[in-house]
Amino acid sequence: MIIILKKDTAKERIKKIASELQAAIISNHSRPDRVLVTPSALKNLKKEFLPAVENYFVFDDDIQLASRKFMDVTREVNVGGITIGGHSKNTLVITGPCSVESEEQIMQSGQLCKQLGVLVMRAGAFKPRTSPYTFQGLGIEGLKLLDKVRKKFGLKIITEVRDATHLEPVIEYADIIQIGAKSMYDHGILNGCAKTRKPVLLKRGFGTTLQEFVQAAEFILSGGNENLILCERGIRTFETKTRFTLDLCGVAYLKKHVNLPVVVDPSHAIGYSYGVADLARAAMAMGVDGLLIETHPNPSVAKSDASQQLNHKEFTELYSSLKAVAKAVGRNVV
Amino acid sequence: MIIILKKDTAKERIKKIASELQAAIISNHSRPDRVLVTPSALKNLKKEFLPAVENYFVFDDDIQLASRKFMDVTREVNVGGITIGGHSKNTLVITGPCSVESEEQIMQSGQLCKQLGVLVMRAGAFKPRTSPYTFQGLGIEGLKLLDKVRKKFGLKIITEVRDATHLEPVIEYADIIQIGAKSMYDHGILNGCAKTRKPVLLKRGFGTTLQEFVQAAEFILSGGNENLILCERGIRTFETKTRFTLDLCGVAYLKKHVNLPVVVDPSHAIGYSYGVADLARAAMAMGVDGLLIETHPNPSVAKSDASQQLNHKEFTELYSSLKAVAKAVGRNVV
Amino acid sequence: MIIILKKDTAKERIKKIASELQAAIISNHSRPDRVLVTPSALKNLKKEFLPAVENYFVFDDDIQLASRKFMDVTREVNVGGITIGGHSKNTLVITGPCSVESEEQIMQSGQLCKQLGVLVMRAGAFKPRTSPYTFQGLGIEGLKLLDKVRKKFGLKIITEVRDATHLEPVIEYADIIQIGAKSMYDHGILNGCAKTRKPVLLKRGFGTTLQEFVQAAEFILSGGNENLILCERGIRTFETKTRFTLDLCGVAYLKKHVNLPVVVDPSHAIGYSYGVADLARAAMAMGVDGLLIETHPNPSVAKSDASQQLNHKEFTELYSSLKAVAKAVGRNVV
Amino acid sequence: MIIILKKDTAKERIKKIASELQAAIISNHSRPDRVLVTPSALKNLKKEFLPAVENYFVFDDDIQLASRKFMDVTREVNVGGITIGGHSKNTLVITGPCSVESEEQIMQSGQLCKQLGVLVMRAGAFKPRTSPYTFQGLGIEGLKLLDKVRKKFGLKIITEVRDATHLEPVIEYADIIQIGAKSMYDHGILNGCAKTRKPVLLKRGFGTTLQEFVQAAEFILSGGNENLILCERGIRTFETKTRFTLDLCGVAYLKKHVNLPVVVDPSHAIGYSYGVADLARAAMAMGVDGLLIETHPNPSVAKSDASQQLNHKEFTELYSSLKAVAKAVGRNVV
Repeated sequence: MIIILKKDTAKERIKKIASELQAAIISNHSRPDRVLVTPSALKNLKKEFLPAVENYFVFDDDIQLASRKFMDVTREVNVGGITIGGHSKNTLVITGPCSVESEEQIMQSGQLCKQLGVLVMRAGAFKPRTSPYTFQGLGIEGLKLLDKVRKKFGLKIITEVRDATHLEPVIEYADIIQIGAKSMYDHGILNGCAKTRKPVLLKRGFGTTLQEFVQAAEFILSGGNENLILCERGIRTFETKTRFTLDLCGVAYLKKHVNLPVVVDPSHAIGYSYGVADLARAAMAMGVDGLLIETHPNPSVAKSDASQQLNHKEFTELYSSLKAVAKAVGRNVV
Repeated sequence: MIIILKKDTAKERIKKIASELQAAIISNHSRPDRVLVTPSALKNLKKEFLPAVENYFVFDDDIQLASRKFMDVTREVNVGGITIGGHSKNTLVITGPCSVESEEQIMQSGQLCKQLGVLVMRAGAFKPRTSPYTFQGLGIEGLKLLDKVRKKFGLKIITEVRDATHLEPVIEYADIIQIGAKSMYDHGILNGCAKTRKPVLLKRGFGTTLQEFVQAAEFILSGGNENLILCERGIRTFETKTRFTLDLCGVAYLKKHVNLPVVVDPSHAIGYSYGVADLARAAMAMGVDGLLIETHPNPSVAKSDASQQLNHKEFTELYSSLKAVAKAVGRNVV
Repeated sequence: MIIILKKDTAKERIKKIASELQAAIISNHSRPDRVLVTPSALKNLKKEFLPAVENYFVFDDDIQLASRKFMDVTREVNVGGITIGGHSKNTLVITGPCSVESEEQIMQSGQLCKQLGVLVMRAGAFKPRTSPYTFQGLGIEGLKLLDKVRKKFGLKIITEVRDATHLEPVIEYADIIQIGAKSMYDHGILNGCAKTRKPVLLKRGFGTTLQEFVQAAEFILSGGNENLILCERGIRTFETKTRFTLDLCGVAYLKKHVNLPVVVDPSHAIGYSYGVADLARAAMAMGVDGLLIETHPNPSVAKSDASQQLNHKEFTELYSSLKAVAKAVGRNVV
Repeated sequence: MIIILKKDTAKERIKKIASELQAAIISNHSRPDRVLVTPSALKNLKKEFLPAVENYFVFDDDIQLASRKFMDVTREVNVGGITIGGHSKNTLVITGPCSVESEEQIMQSGQLCKQLGVLVMRAGAFKPRTSPYTFQGLGIEGLKLLDKVRKKFGLKIITEVRDATHLEPVIEYADIIQIGAKSMYDHGILNGCAKTRKPVLLKRGFGTTLQEFVQAAEFILSGGNENLILCERGIRTFETKTRFTLDLCGVAYLKKHVNLPVVVDPSHAIGYSYGVADLARAAMAMGVDGLLIETHPNPSVAKSDASQQLNHKEFTELYSSLKAVAKAVGRNVV
């Protein structure tokens, strides 16, 4: 249950009610420190509390702050002046390589963004690889290169945190903190990202239900950070011709029931460059809030995800066609 | 291996070669009775056969006649004058109810098609229900009602065969024979559909890999019917918020590797009407060859699939937006 | 809802009640023609019917006749004098090759059964292959060879029906009719098997939920054939190191909630001979009602499923260890 | 490739070879600092290195140190005098509650272990819950209670690390460090566990392939900790009647191909107490190296996983039957 207490409720009284109801006091930006969230198991509010209550919301399950039942309009997230969600019709197209590999490579990616008008660039410095015998990312050095490219081209940067041991530098260097699919349940990361006010992009785990996905988002929302974006990037199914299965039914579900902006990553979903453009256009036609598309100046030599990255020519063509589809469905590419 | 024998090869010689190679002789429409298909395990052709051979194709697996390695252009399928595949840019939008329920209902559906210019109407007479205690379809009586609506409104009809016991009447009454997801492995149906020349729409089983799906198509192609359309309608995954998971990565794979037209059914995939329009636009943006969308004059009283059918107003709006997306990606709605 | 009418209820009255409730009249062996089954949506029985009613059962879903809520004890199935289920502690171990390939091969398999005391032999004549370019089974000729081996060694035969076009000869030749995983939804087969009294072994589809699986069984039970056995043979998951994933959690569920005997097929589940013995012992330790284990006189030359069949030496060792495990958990191998 | 250098190779030479081959130098307990592991992509060793090489092993993929191709016998893991793997036939049965909830509760669990002769007790202090609004574990206080129960009853303790922020205290307090299913990809934890010599039990993620699972183990092995145990605890599939699907085919695969001891957790797999005993016996019949079974003095009031925990009476009966099955397959319960 979400309980909104009256504006003038005394701090002491709020604490007492929260304690009696085993509720978290959360800081909704427009209503600081007077929103309580209890486990969803609570369905009825005792009479004694009612005088202090402005409004309350009952839920079937622990999707509460993220539910459209609580807040109907998609939450607005602002990335250094660029807005998605809210009443905007913006779709944020993000591109860049899987990993920062070298200054030369990342500068070429920055150049591409600059040239096309792409505002946010992606690249990973801490890579959550499945094998210990492959490239693990450049780490802090990679973050510094991202800072350089950001300054040179006036871009915003989204980069991934792999585990809680390097959360601080990622928060420091990133404009959007990406929580990767494999780190989605990491309480160290979720709790840390709840304490910053920087935007966070939370990727769905490939073995994660929509229910669990949004519940992970609730850790961040209830911890106090409302600048949160969800990202669908493919789930693991029995099909092996493609790397994962992009769950656009899930995207439709999130759009209907959840009040957070939704970004789609077609590159990791299919795992092969041949299908990325079609899937990106498909997501655009659904009116998603953003797209995350991997590109590389020379995909064939990429140190990770070589098969799925578009080259710059392919992306340039795709970017133009995305604008056409956006127009057909009433969206603006930003 | 597919082996194309020279045009003037004697019938006896063809038979002999086929027998020695354990090959099927298939009747490709442009090259009758001189195309041989062996198991894909055969990788090399003995020298002695070469003088009779015009061309041959080696394959990794038993996707052979359906492979773009054999035939690069999508096969053209003609439904009573309406063409998809080939060099056309047509996307065939099909609609109608899950089941034929009554004359009144089906006439209203026919009226909708007529009004909007939809050329092909869908509706099931033999329903493959999962429970014996629910509506099983009107059977032959349903086929007769479909014939009536076809004549009244000048439509083409697609309807489903559930099992081999009623294949003959379905072939007789349908303009396109639909093989449902649960019947996809049915050899009685596959072999029967191989012998007709009517177009067949083969739905992917919800537990079926792309490999197996296209191999089922090979039963029909190798049996002699090239008027074949594939349909993606959602696969079964761990996600339960939606009924199935529409596999658009799989559609991208089929477009890339398989020479058959591909139709998408968003209604069965998501199982809820709220997401059908978004998913239909997504598929259109991918440039698929067709869409299969369930509509009902009054979904709330539908005898099957009530939750996923659009009402006529919803479909009318969707149909208009589909044309806008089609235009953006260079397709024609037919 | 299942409604048991009083013993002396007039035929006319039964028909009338059935018609008013849209119920099927089924012939439970101990209570012929006075058991009604309505859709499970019916939760309350109108007062007017009560005088004719002996007892009734309300259900959450369309698992009704198969539910332990209706009949607590596992149904007894008799295969030519061999009993499983009921109050027996018998576990029926069935073996034999994937396909009948030749008289010599099948006679060797019969010899193995005879020698070890295995009472029921398996082998397929109509094979539901996924590719049209591989061995499809010997068909009727295969059935005749099975008849020969049955007579020679005094065995019972279980063999598979692939589609409804050859259901009759399979019913005629088999002692147990096997409905394969790919045919599990085939209404032609289900309805046909409901009309015979021969035992039927229904395999779970690899993409089929337990709910759908038992609902398919309800087609046979409600059609009048209670000699029904369920078989778990592995479901399709994201794991590809093994062919399928044997669902022993599902077996535990069936044992708890469903009143039909359960057989486990470890061979098709794992798809590799190395794991079959361990999985067979695992299933035995759970106290299942039967095991279906593929063996071949010479697996390396088998025309289908070569990798998963045990040779006769391997099976002989396994059979002995199965008896030890059976004893530890209070079961008898038959 | 794994390369074992000759015993007397100079340290400098080892470093140089490692650097040229981009190999990790790992410390195999019997051959410290002269085992190199390169990415598995390396298939051939240049002639110039051969004089320094004692032996080398080529692999298909990055399952290398864990492969039976490298080391045929299962690695031996010693938990305070109790041995599993190696040439032992021991199966370690571990029990205890999901979470430490109170001193009273955990002492009752310790009492049960003491009474039956169970040597290792499980209980979580840091719980990786999916919802922020439910019990998150007692944290450090829980670890201290575990220390108390360990001392009182002379037990060994296995407890879970949830994320990298509290890895140190878990390493300090635990006798076996459990890496939970949701933390399996956490590089902070994997790298931290590689540096201790305490035994680690790595649970398979529920969306994780066997390939990825063993590759996560390679992070620990290649980092220098060989005291490693794998745990299968159920994967996520389309089936929802049970919480997860226990993958015993996967266990058979691991037993065949991987040199690490394998423990099975039936409680989390099925999620319901009714099936735990049957599944535990099934795993025992496969000859696994251990079982992890949740018990609670009073499951109905448990703060987490209430539905799947056995009460002490149920476990006592199960424990006795496990010994019978163990005997039938030649294992010792420890």
